[in-house]
Amino acid sequence: MGRKKTTIAVVAPGGSIKSATSAKLNALVSRLYPEGSVDLRFAPQCFLSCGHFAGSDSERSLAFLETANDPEIDAVWFGRGGYGACRLDENLFAGLNDAARRKVYLGYSDAGILLARLYREGIGKPVHGPMVADIDRKGGEESAARALRFLVGRREETLEPSVQTGVNAVAFNITILSHLIGTAWMPDLSGHVLMLEEVAEYMYRIDRSLFQITSSRELRNVAGIRLGRCSEVPENDPEFGQSEEDITKFWCARNGIPYLGRADIGHDTANKIVPFGLPPRL
Amino acid sequence: MGRKKTTIAVVAPGGSIKSATSAKLNALVSRLYPEGSVDLRFAPQCFLSCGHFAGSDSERSLAFLETANDPEIDAVWFGRGGYGACRLDENLFAGLNDAARRKVYLGYSDAGILLARLYREGIGKPVHGPMVADIDRKGGEESAARALRFLVGRREETLEPSVQTGVNAVAFNITILSHLIGTAWMPDLSGHVLMLEEVAEYMYRIDRSLFQITSSRELRNVAGIRLGRCSEVPENDPEFGQSEEDITKFWCARNGIPYLGRADIGHDTANKIVPFGLPPRL
Repeated sequence: MGRKKTTIAVVAPGGSIKSATSAKLNALVSRLYPEGSVDLRFAPQCFLSCGHFAGSDSERSLAFLETANDPEIDAVWFGRGGYGACRLDENLFAGLNDAARRKVYLGYSDAGILLARLYREGIGKPVHGPMVADIDRKGGEESAARALRFLVGRREETLEPSVQTGVNAVAFNITILSHLIGTAWMPDLSGHVLMLEEVAEYMYRIDRSLFQITSSRELRNVAGIRLGRCSEVPENDPEFGQSEEDITKFWCARNGIPYLGRADIGHDTANKIVPFGLPPRL
Repeated sequence: MGRKKTTIAVVAPGGSIKSATSAKLNALVSRLYPEGSVDLRFAPQCFLSCGHFAGSDSERSLAFLETANDPEIDAVWFGRGGYGACRLDENLFAGLNDAARRKVYLGYSDAGILLARLYREGIGKPVHGPMVADIDRKGGEESAARALRFLVGRREETLEPSVQTGVNAVAFNITILSHLIGTAWMPDLSGHVLMLEEVAEYMYRIDRSLFQITSSRELRNVAGIRLGRCSEVPENDPEFGQSEEDITKFWCARNGIPYLGRADIGHDTANKIVPFGLPPRL
């Protein structure tokens, strides 16, 4: 029996992708899947530039809509974060079709805003994990290969180790989740294990976002919080005096949310995969 | 008839105050009010240091509670922002007495979190305006003198010019307001003119916070938004492509909130005063 081909399309809801990045990923795909079982397509929109963004709000919205609705495509892989997903046209969600509902959507960081909205709308399978631009990190082929192994084969070793059959989970960047609160992009996360990670934010800002996340009426009924890595934290003046785990425990205790320990996610090449909701059969 | 003495107490809910700063303010008060009509008191807590904060959470909470409840004190003046007001013990608000309910509370930036909570609880008169540490800015005596003229005499020329009898208003730092959404610190701002200002945030972050503020169910029914100054915006790479007024108009239009023009507030010495709710009789 011939192996099914997996078609993966890359769109960029926030910042644009460099052509060198796409070339690197194409080369990796050719090396890992020499038999041609992976068809990787970059939406032309990925390479557009409009101020801060990979094209205008309309161009990014349309590229996402068309890609999500394309029945030939199995998975939408977000190219990179940056900033811009919350500017997509909110009306597009009503235009997503049955093909969009069968797809996997993979990304994190700013793209988490889009994962959140898709999860709220019950469209497809949003998944928190490496993006295309992670290949530009030192050792970044490891994250790209992990993302591909998940997209192609749902391989168990790609998953964050605490992900379990029967337990709903989600993962978010701390700053991004904080900015979703109160908006129509926030899904119902009752009973979910909430994994959080951060990059390049001062400790006082991580603390302030955790205040909001744990105090929020929308998030107080999560099953618990797992803390991923907080990397590249700029030096605080004066020394903040508490670690990211100290403050996560503090805010969880203050607001009656179970602290469940660490999660193997972060803005790095080791970033493991967290499917929103229940994991694929393990 | 002898002129009433105004007693002003300084507390620091976030970062600590330098003794040189308090000395500068004491000297200004002696010069502006040589007849001794202003009694300025610094809570000893202002000068404590505990990691990032002006004392532990308990020390800051207690200093605020005792100062607010002291019947000899007319106004609580927040020393500076930084970060820390949201860490105050939430139980303290239930312990505020009648004396606390008669006071003015003056500050902005991180202290806006406390102004918000007091406004939500209907305690005293929260007022957005210069803090003690603003005296350390170039030309900072101007802001300190403006704050004192308001605290002592409710002088009309100290007020933000759009403040009008009969129209509820509030003012906030954009990042701070964004982090209040969904929490028990957010007051009901229906029908209020919402003035916003920002300092030292990238334009994409201002944009992201405005997404949350204008999209939030809690804030969609404000009477309108006035944009104060966004200063010290770090350079965006690439060029963001839109100004702070462009993006405020964009988000207001997208979410059906009237954009009312500019406000004369900001993290600078020209920062005018915005009493929460209705202004004093003009």
